[in-house]
Amino acid sequence: MRALTVEPLKAGSAKVRDVPDPSAGPGEMLVEGLALGICGTDREIAAGEYGWAPPDRDRLVLGHESLGRVRTAPPDSGFAPGDLVVGVVRRPDPVPCGACGHGEFDMCRNGRYTERGIKEIDGYGSQAWTVETAYAVKLDPRLERVGALMEPTTVVAKAWEQVEKVGARSWFEPRRVLVTGAGPIGLLAALLGVQRGLEVHVLDLATDGPKPETVKALGAEYHANGLGEVAARARPDVIIEATGVSSLVFEAMASTAAYGIVCLTGVSPVGRKISVDVGAANRDMVLENDAVVGSVNANLLHYASAAAALAEADPDWLARLITRRLPLDRYIEALESRQDDIKVVLDLTA
Amino acid sequence: MRALTVEPLKAGSAKVRDVPDPSAGPGEMLVEGLALGICGTDREIAAGEYGWAPPDRDRLVLGHESLGRVRTAPPDSGFAPGDLVVGVVRRPDPVPCGACGHGEFDMCRNGRYTERGIKEIDGYGSQAWTVETAYAVKLDPRLERVGALMEPTTVVAKAWEQVEKVGARSWFEPRRVLVTGAGPIGLLAALLGVQRGLEVHVLDLATDGPKPETVKALGAEYHANGLGEVAARARPDVIIEATGVSSLVFEAMASTAAYGIVCLTGVSPVGRKISVDVGAANRDMVLENDAVVGSVNANLLHYASAAAALAEADPDWLARLITRRLPLDRYIEALESRQDDIKVVLDLTA
Repeated sequence: MRALTVEPLKAGSAKVRDVPDPSAGPGEMLVEGLALGICGTDREIAAGEYGWAPPDRDRLVLGHESLGRVRTAPPDSGFAPGDLVVGVVRRPDPVPCGACGHGEFDMCRNGRYTERGIKEIDGYGSQAWTVETAYAVKLDPRLERVGALMEPTTVVAKAWEQVEKVGARSWFEPRRVLVTGAGPIGLLAALLGVQRGLEVHVLDLATDGPKPETVKALGAEYHANGLGEVAARARPDVIIEATGVSSLVFEAMASTAAYGIVCLTGVSPVGRKISVDVGAANRDMVLENDAVVGSVNANLLHYASAAAALAEADPDWLARLITRRLPLDRYIEALESRQDDIKVVLDLTA
Repeated sequence: MRALTVEPLKAGSAKVRDVPDPSAGPGEMLVEGLALGICGTDREIAAGEYGWAPPDRDRLVLGHESLGRVRTAPPDSGFAPGDLVVGVVRRPDPVPCGACGHGEFDMCRNGRYTERGIKEIDGYGSQAWTVETAYAVKLDPRLERVGALMEPTTVVAKAWEQVEKVGARSWFEPRRVLVTGAGPIGLLAALLGVQRGLEVHVLDLATDGPKPETVKALGAEYHANGLGEVAARARPDVIIEATGVSSLVFEAMASTAAYGIVCLTGVSPVGRKISVDVGAANRDMVLENDAVVGSVNANLLHYASAAAALAEADPDWLARLITRRLPLDRYIEALESRQDDIKVVLDLTA
């Protein structure tokens, strides 16, 4: 079968290759790969900046935003041939830390987790793959076109859970959320905000292309002006930061209403200093009891809530988020980041 | 009687004056003022930078770090003449916000609270004062020398509660805490860390004076080198920031162990930009699921836990924190900040 592979830490090494067909071990399913979402982490790995091959090999099968259809499943596993499924990305170390031992491998404390398509285990970028039934989640059959959005949805499901858990330290009835960035994470965060009944604002640089209309179609308000201006008007109780742009990250910390919560989800480059008024942000955070929380990855509970959120969403709106869909052999194009891209998906069946 | 008064927003207006003796209304106690702790907020108010007089007056009685002895109390109030008491600082607006309506006036969302000695109600800097029994807390009789430390202890009791509530969003068994700043807030935060069984590190600039010895007497480790160096060695799970120094505030955000929590308690000046690598801090916070929480003020639950923490502490250690004790008439000296000061207290009986 064909698989998208890469030699980690070697720029330009991504290549679709023939690899042996997988076979399901005990407790595993064999899954036909349908689609693979491409994200910034995949691009970092393809650029040679990140990633780990399996311990005994040079190459890693890329891909962690999976979508597949079950071919064979163990009896009584809750899965059956034909089911639409996604595989979970992270696995805890066999000797788990305190968090991993409690099922919270997304909160791993010692860094000894592995991740499919990223860290030491092959990903889901192949025409067939296997997955442990304990690390797979069934999707609503109506999500066949858009199910590759599941993994980023788990990331925002966790982000929202973090906001709500940090919010629960006192009385918390948020009304307005501002999402910075109208990429897949930002738009899915906005979707979950709308599903929570909140007034949702989305800030991005784009003034044309698909983003403004996609935000409006959700019933949210789109902004392309400065964060300070939007925040002063909207007074958000929650900001979900999904750009990683340093200046926005910092501005977000100082832009909430009292008892505001900022959730950081974007990963930014290191080593560029910017000049900021830390004193003002600190004063504001202290006097308003504000909080900032970083959020990465997702555990099985977040997969379950993401599956529920997607099942509840309008599939036509979700389809707007997939702005390019390419056959596997056009992986080079898929790994390029283009203006107006929201989510790029590789079709593993084409 | 004599009271320390100030005309808010007028620098140099602090003055001890004769004011009418107070009389207790329904639900109130009459209290003999014993001592008044002086903090940075009092100095800001005396410098004309902050503060609000009562609506119908020019002058405000200063002071919110109270200690007194009950003269008269309503029957069945739980208080009796001779009890050592402190008064709570903040009062919710009669039309409370959602947080104030839940007893969490320290988390007020609309800013319409009042504060004794700070915002629109007279403080505790007088030879006698009254207080509602619902806003007073009894102290262990052994705390007569040191009870003026109660209010800053409530601030750190809240800070620790915030750390624990933010920590409870996942598995959380912290081992090491780093406190930045060995002023009263920092040292009391360190005390509560030791009481929790944690390994406690305290960072300050002082290389002599009372601070290093006071930290060591607590069984904590004192550091006068850079935060980065201390954090790299100690890998703190929790940092309690008690300086408000912008560079330290920022460095703290990037210096915790995985799933680290920084609690900001220091209020810093506004308007001085510093050059920092926000991208690195953001990346670290996201990939490690770190959190930063601002904390100010305290509600009745924090007063109760602070009273318990002080009762459990060694009064001789607490006495080390009061490095100057001056009679009321020497308020000018008390309002000066001196090197090697930890806490300055005005003796209201002298």
